[in-house]
Amino acid sequence: MNNLENIVSLCKRRGFIFPGSDVYGGMAGTWDYGPLGVMLKKKIMDAWWNYFVEQRDDIYGVDAAILMNPKTWAASGHLATFSDPLVECKECKSRFRADKIADGISESVTTEEFLATHTKCPVCGKENWGPIRKFNMMFATHVGAVLPEDNTENAELAAKSTAYLRPETAQGIFTNYKNVVDTIYPSLPFGIAQQGKAFRNEISPRDFILRDRECTQMEIEYFVHPDTWEENFEKMRSAQHNFLENIVGLPQDKLHEYEVPAADRAHYSKRTIDLMFDYPNGEEELMGLAYRTDFDLANIQRESGKSMEYRDKVTGETFIPHVIEPSIGVERLFLAILSNAYTEEKVADKDETRIVLKLPENLAPYKFCVSPLLKNKPELVTKAKEVYDKLRAKYSNVTWDDSGNIGKRYRKQDEIGTPKCVVIDFDTLEDDTVTVRDRDTTEQIRVNIAEL
Amino acid sequence: MNNLENIVSLCKRRGFIFPGSDVYGGMAGTWDYGPLGVMLKKKIMDAWWNYFVEQRDDIYGVDAAILMNPKTWAASGHLATFSDPLVECKECKSRFRADKIADGISESVTTEEFLATHTKCPVCGKENWGPIRKFNMMFATHVGAVLPEDNTENAELAAKSTAYLRPETAQGIFTNYKNVVDTIYPSLPFGIAQQGKAFRNEISPRDFILRDRECTQMEIEYFVHPDTWEENFEKMRSAQHNFLENIVGLPQDKLHEYEVPAADRAHYSKRTIDLMFDYPNGEEELMGLAYRTDFDLANIQRESGKSMEYRDKVTGETFIPHVIEPSIGVERLFLAILSNAYTEEKVADKDETRIVLKLPENLAPYKFCVSPLLKNKPELVTKAKEVYDKLRAKYSNVTWDDSGNIGKRYRKQDEIGTPKCVVIDFDTLEDDTVTVRDRDTTEQIRVNIAEL
Repeated sequence: MNNLENIVSLCKRRGFIFPGSDVYGGMAGTWDYGPLGVMLKKKIMDAWWNYFVEQRDDIYGVDAAILMNPKTWAASGHLATFSDPLVECKECKSRFRADKIADGISESVTTEEFLATHTKCPVCGKENWGPIRKFNMMFATHVGAVLPEDNTENAELAAKSTAYLRPETAQGIFTNYKNVVDTIYPSLPFGIAQQGKAFRNEISPRDFILRDRECTQMEIEYFVHPDTWEENFEKMRSAQHNFLENIVGLPQDKLHEYEVPAADRAHYSKRTIDLMFDYPNGEEELMGLAYRTDFDLANIQRESGKSMEYRDKVTGETFIPHVIEPSIGVERLFLAILSNAYTEEKVADKDETRIVLKLPENLAPYKFCVSPLLKNKPELVTKAKEVYDKLRAKYSNVTWDDSGNIGKRYRKQDEIGTPKCVVIDFDTLEDDTVTVRDRDTTEQIRVNIAEL
Repeated sequence: MNNLENIVSLCKRRGFIFPGSDVYGGMAGTWDYGPLGVMLKKKIMDAWWNYFVEQRDDIYGVDAAILMNPKTWAASGHLATFSDPLVECKECKSRFRADKIADGISESVTTEEFLATHTKCPVCGKENWGPIRKFNMMFATHVGAVLPEDNTENAELAAKSTAYLRPETAQGIFTNYKNVVDTIYPSLPFGIAQQGKAFRNEISPRDFILRDRECTQMEIEYFVHPDTWEENFEKMRSAQHNFLENIVGLPQDKLHEYEVPAADRAHYSKRTIDLMFDYPNGEEELMGLAYRTDFDLANIQRESGKSMEYRDKVTGETFIPHVIEPSIGVERLFLAILSNAYTEEKVADKDETRIVLKLPENLAPYKFCVSPLLKNKPELVTKAKEVYDKLRAKYSNVTWDDSGNIGKRYRKQDEIGTPKCVVIDFDTLEDDTVTVRDRDTTEQIRVNIAEL
């Protein structure tokens, strides 16, 4: 069955994703990518960068620091509003996200509303709650010469040195908008793209890599003349679909657009579409596309006192550009691609099920697996090494496998998504042909080595 | 002159590197990469990954989380020893790294030794010092449902939730050693490589990107049988030289090996070579190559209670592998490449100096710049666009420039290191030839478009 547990299990078994700090009993909400996972993640990120930055003339990259001046988060509103409602059980001291343990309340629940739900503590079963407190999801740290004891002995210094791990990559783009305009002189519309880590202190991380505390975002802020936001929104929407469907191969019928109603949108957004994907455990947000007006640049202009205005090269008109923002998390895309590829199917004529990762060829960690039919026949091994070296010279992603028997190797290569297995047998020594076995059909054909 | 200030200025002017959070007055010790800087940084990182991971059969990648279980830093020794000596002036409350403001003392200076130097406060000029305190350079944060007020009201909870931003990527490799062995079954020797952010709370960040608070490391832990460490050390040493000299083009005569004497090595290291580079401001460490024995895996085995032993597939011998570690910071490599490429030279027959980035072709952000000789001649622009599109279809890194006059464009492309400028003029319309101007020699030749 294509359920999340099976995918988590495959990820761990085959070296795609391990629980973070596994050897020490873990670190909730963090995940480590293993050898296969890094290959897939890198291919996904490179495909995005190539499609949206390298192949386009109008989108430029930046790579901003994770530690930013705290004014960033005052201006963006994160300091004031990027929080979850935290409630503590006075009996057992356990803490929870209030809206996750009581039904029918929202993130902005008040203490009175929460108490009225008469929720019992999920840990001790009692009903004796403290007040709802705002728990800011940004990770705080101290930058500069501040000692742990300053928290109690020198609160002013401690407060002054407080900085945050960025909760999104977007602000690293907005704060560099002026730098890009002043060095590259782009004409509107143009975009700035960034890939990088973002951190959110989720009270209860869950759903594998879908809701983790540390994620990798890929965001574009696309700056447009305010009058043209609708046409640019449509263009960006179609570019996103093209990327998701044609570059990384997600099927159209698993992608659903959710037009976020005005009441649920951020107050500055005039239009937001969430692109939902059919994950193993149900429909979940894969990415968002938002029209953010001039909210962010206007905030920066106000907080920094520096003009964020753009002067049109032809008309001379001066204005703060408006912004279309496509935003996607690498982990969400990774899991969409992986769960879409994950297949269990009955082996013809056998009472067996095989697990296959039907990854698109451009994303599969390895393109070919080369192996000798038998590993204890030196002449086969030598010949197979020859073929392997030949393919390696042409492709960087070729793997070698001489473990177990040929059936086990096929099973392993199926599970890691290798499209073609090339097997060298005794006939190869005679006529220079090899068996090429197809991952998806399991069909085997004879091919001359020169034609590989 | 090839000094650091000129390079910092070029970086800012041309969009390579901006001060972090510049729009808000900065954030000491952080730097943001602009459009050109991202291109160069990505090429450097990809070149390293390709050379050490993709082109080799014996090195695998991982990508571990930045937030790790705190036991990691207890086991590695960072909690106890990764610190600088901090001293506070009791008069003006300024804080300093003691060994940076007094001569002839080391990082392990005692209060008595420091007071004996009779150093005056660099800020207020008085001599009234508090004791030397150990300032741990790891950035601390709280993970999970912990509120700022817990620091004072619930110290136990606050302490229990404390985690650190990793100060090195190496431990994300060591903690995954067992995962890689159990999923990939590699034979010794084999290596695990990681690229990623690491954070160090430098009391006084300085020297541009050389001593920043947030850097990107590229590290390999190469696991070997203890008896073979010397030969593997030599192989890794020569691989590092090959990468630095032949893949990213650093000249041999600017690279110097410094054999770290036993007294200056970490106690667990039996041999360490620092590879020094002639930076604009003098010789500085570019990278390190260390033989770390079984120090890290033995620490993990002790702290986790899990066996880190490797069982030889042929002999059955069981042992904890020893480790050779090449470690390099992307920023240090970036600055080495940039400062080596940075050239100021007299323009022949003119009273002018031109600035050229003589970057190797495989690292230059753009390979070609295409432009029409005159931007107000539509027939030239149309023809130039044709040539541009043709080259773009073949290479992803081609840029277009029709700003200013042709002289200004050459100056700009020289400064960003574009090897070839392709100019479309009136002759092009007649005979389909273009001018190709070479960055390094400034020579211009006529080339048929078909031969580009």
